[in-house]
Amino acid sequence: MADIEVDYCVVGAGFAGLTAALRLKQAGRSVALLEARDRIGGRTFTEVREDGSWIDRGGAWIGPGQDRIYALMDEFGVKSYKQYTDGEAMMVVDGKQYRYKGTIPLTMSPWAAANLGAVFVELGEMCKSIPLDAPWEAKKAAKWDAISLAKWLGDNTLSRPAHDLLETAIAGCYTSAASEVSMLFVLYQMASGGGPSFVLGVKDAAEDARPVGGMGAVYRPMAAEIGDALHLSQPVRDIAQDGDGVTVRSADMAVRAQRAIVAVPLAIASQILYEPLLPMDRAFLHQRMPSGAVMKIAVLYDEPFWRADGLSGQSAAPESPATITIDASTDTGRPGVLCVIAEGPIARKLGTLPEAERKNQVLGELTSRFGKKAASPVDYIEQNWSVERYSGGGMLSHAPTGVLTQFGHALRKPCGRIHWAGTESSSVMCGWVDGAVRSGERAAREVTAQ
Amino acid sequence: MADIEVDYCVVGAGFAGLTAALRLKQAGRSVALLEARDRIGGRTFTEVREDGSWIDRGGAWIGPGQDRIYALMDEFGVKSYKQYTDGEAMMVVDGKQYRYKGTIPLTMSPWAAANLGAVFVELGEMCKSIPLDAPWEAKKAAKWDAISLAKWLGDNTLSRPAHDLLETAIAGCYTSAASEVSMLFVLYQMASGGGPSFVLGVKDAAEDARPVGGMGAVYRPMAAEIGDALHLSQPVRDIAQDGDGVTVRSADMAVRAQRAIVAVPLAIASQILYEPLLPMDRAFLHQRMPSGAVMKIAVLYDEPFWRADGLSGQSAAPESPATITIDASTDTGRPGVLCVIAEGPIARKLGTLPEAERKNQVLGELTSRFGKKAASPVDYIEQNWSVERYSGGGMLSHAPTGVLTQFGHALRKPCGRIHWAGTESSSVMCGWVDGAVRSGERAAREVTAQ
Repeated sequence: MADIEVDYCVVGAGFAGLTAALRLKQAGRSVALLEARDRIGGRTFTEVREDGSWIDRGGAWIGPGQDRIYALMDEFGVKSYKQYTDGEAMMVVDGKQYRYKGTIPLTMSPWAAANLGAVFVELGEMCKSIPLDAPWEAKKAAKWDAISLAKWLGDNTLSRPAHDLLETAIAGCYTSAASEVSMLFVLYQMASGGGPSFVLGVKDAAEDARPVGGMGAVYRPMAAEIGDALHLSQPVRDIAQDGDGVTVRSADMAVRAQRAIVAVPLAIASQILYEPLLPMDRAFLHQRMPSGAVMKIAVLYDEPFWRADGLSGQSAAPESPATITIDASTDTGRPGVLCVIAEGPIARKLGTLPEAERKNQVLGELTSRFGKKAASPVDYIEQNWSVERYSGGGMLSHAPTGVLTQFGHALRKPCGRIHWAGTESSSVMCGWVDGAVRSGERAAREVTAQ
Repeated sequence: MADIEVDYCVVGAGFAGLTAALRLKQAGRSVALLEARDRIGGRTFTEVREDGSWIDRGGAWIGPGQDRIYALMDEFGVKSYKQYTDGEAMMVVDGKQYRYKGTIPLTMSPWAAANLGAVFVELGEMCKSIPLDAPWEAKKAAKWDAISLAKWLGDNTLSRPAHDLLETAIAGCYTSAASEVSMLFVLYQMASGGGPSFVLGVKDAAEDARPVGGMGAVYRPMAAEIGDALHLSQPVRDIAQDGDGVTVRSADMAVRAQRAIVAVPLAIASQILYEPLLPMDRAFLHQRMPSGAVMKIAVLYDEPFWRADGLSGQSAAPESPATITIDASTDTGRPGVLCVIAEGPIARKLGTLPEAERKNQVLGELTSRFGKKAASPVDYIEQNWSVERYSGGGMLSHAPTGVLTQFGHALRKPCGRIHWAGTESSSVMCGWVDGAVRSGERAAREVTAQ
């Protein structure tokens, strides 16, 4: 067993942990960063292909207001490029395809469109009443935390098409069924990004741009600067704290430090044994913020042929195995990449199919939407986050009903010498890579302030 | 490391695991039963005092319809005795005490009492529509699984006193805030016991009787028959399965078996590493059925002096640290025991107080209800289940909204060579000791049928 003694030990080398370790090292402190996987990035994962192009198998997009990920990119000289949004999007309803421009699909009757717009406005107003640092103190917190997103949408969206579109889009953000997610959590998470338009939008919103080179172009130079303080393939099983410090143990290593920063999803933090036990409410929180199900598939072609057909590559087809598609080509547009995303119940169903059948279904959907060329990709890369041992699922942990009002206060509160990072602990851009970066910087400030 | 090879390995020596191991041994199979604690009993825990009297620090009561725990008691010659229910119960509202007999406190106006009765009837009717083996198939499953108990009670209990009493009583069963628990789960759990009258009642209901000698009088002879197949202080960290069998590992032991039965609460099952990963929906279920908070305090006196004052020892005071009291004396009535129970948010608050202050508050409450004699107990024994590492909380795991409809199908389904027991996996008497016994017998049948 390798014994290491450092100032601080960071657990988890996703963006939160990488940022914390980087900032601590830059402040002249000694650090050990333990990562369970044999790779860094956590819920981001950039695969570089032989031709030099890249695929983001996990978190990929950045948008306005996400200043801390942009700052990191500046620091390492990583440029961004805009998400391709020219041309028409497509909505598939009852097997019929509708092409449209703008926010609201042309499939909708004026009444449905008006209803959709009204609900959007209502959500925006509700978000404004959420104090980001303490959503459980919102005036209507108890009311909204007693119901799921499914219940709220059912009561407040009278048009069936508007309801179904919103339920697919919003529940998708939490990679769960709408019945699983507390309405208060939905409002809090939306508010942390600035409101529903940011969360559900593309241009000037949550999918506005991407780093050139993918997320890996950011996390690789971070890891390089962290250097040999990074230890891969070290799943942490135990963290003990005493009056003088903490001892963090994996199967092969024991790290002694003044303080630890745990930067993993809550369901994963729950699998670490803490000695002594964590304070009651933090331990209970670990049992109560599950990860969701998401399947992300990159389908590659020589070029983004749909652009010439006047299509943006964006499509939405509720209940379909290819629920959402979006153009995920690199900045050069070569190769052309369609990113297929299935979330929540559909992702789980898709995950249980034999691989060949799943591919067949997905390519069938793409062909029907984008034409024959879609049937013959040059590459097909699946990432099923639902079976990732060290993420516990994807994309972000959500709070079921009652959890924020009862246990939310424990989201960021240090437990003795253990501090918490991870995008779920960020009150700004909670759930995005930017939130992870913010949480890492906050945790680094916390430990050095002691 | 001790290597053992047996037919079956059982994880967890609560009533579910003990029963499974016992039935397998009685069927002539070789078994290893691994228990994390240095004691057996799990969420039951009988302390025998020097004078031979006993205290049930955990699950204690039995009732009609709980045939499998009664059968076990018969098998080992353990008699039962009736819960003391003579005299008047007490309700404390706004600091005022009301003594009453029967089900409905006299504090209530006729309107409140009528409302309470109507809600009870409604709950009973709703329970009848729940298929116990598949509550997610109830006609209104989606509707009830989209809201919490708090929402349903808020919408359906118009009288404030009736609402508050029901919320305290029902949410208490799940040792949680009413906002945390899915209404569908509430109905399912109630239905599994026969309806709301069983769950919330005492006489002829869930607290009808107790084993003479406490639960320990049942689990000790079970353990004696299991003999040296029981291994204490062996927290299981890993379970690997392959084509030929399973390997179950603690820090000190490796058990090779044909199949494993995991008989621990879901939040604890979540801390075991499975190789290969469990099927997606089972892994997600482990993240989604948390344990609650409960504090159980036994306050002992030479005799149950309240009986002479015409009091049953039962009292209820919502929001008070001594939320519920009940006479928990042994069959001889010597010593006299008042059992104080705090559940959910109040239990968590109580758990954070310094011990002396908590004791002071509890004895103050008892004195105000039962008179000066209550101030001078001969013994005072606290059991805070919220900080029990190997239960993850108490009393039973609950399902938040959306969980039963999405993941309920995974509650009992074996995952390859891993089978599941524990009261949460029983469709009859789910949440009681009897459900644990049933689940152990079911799991034993499953593995031997292979």
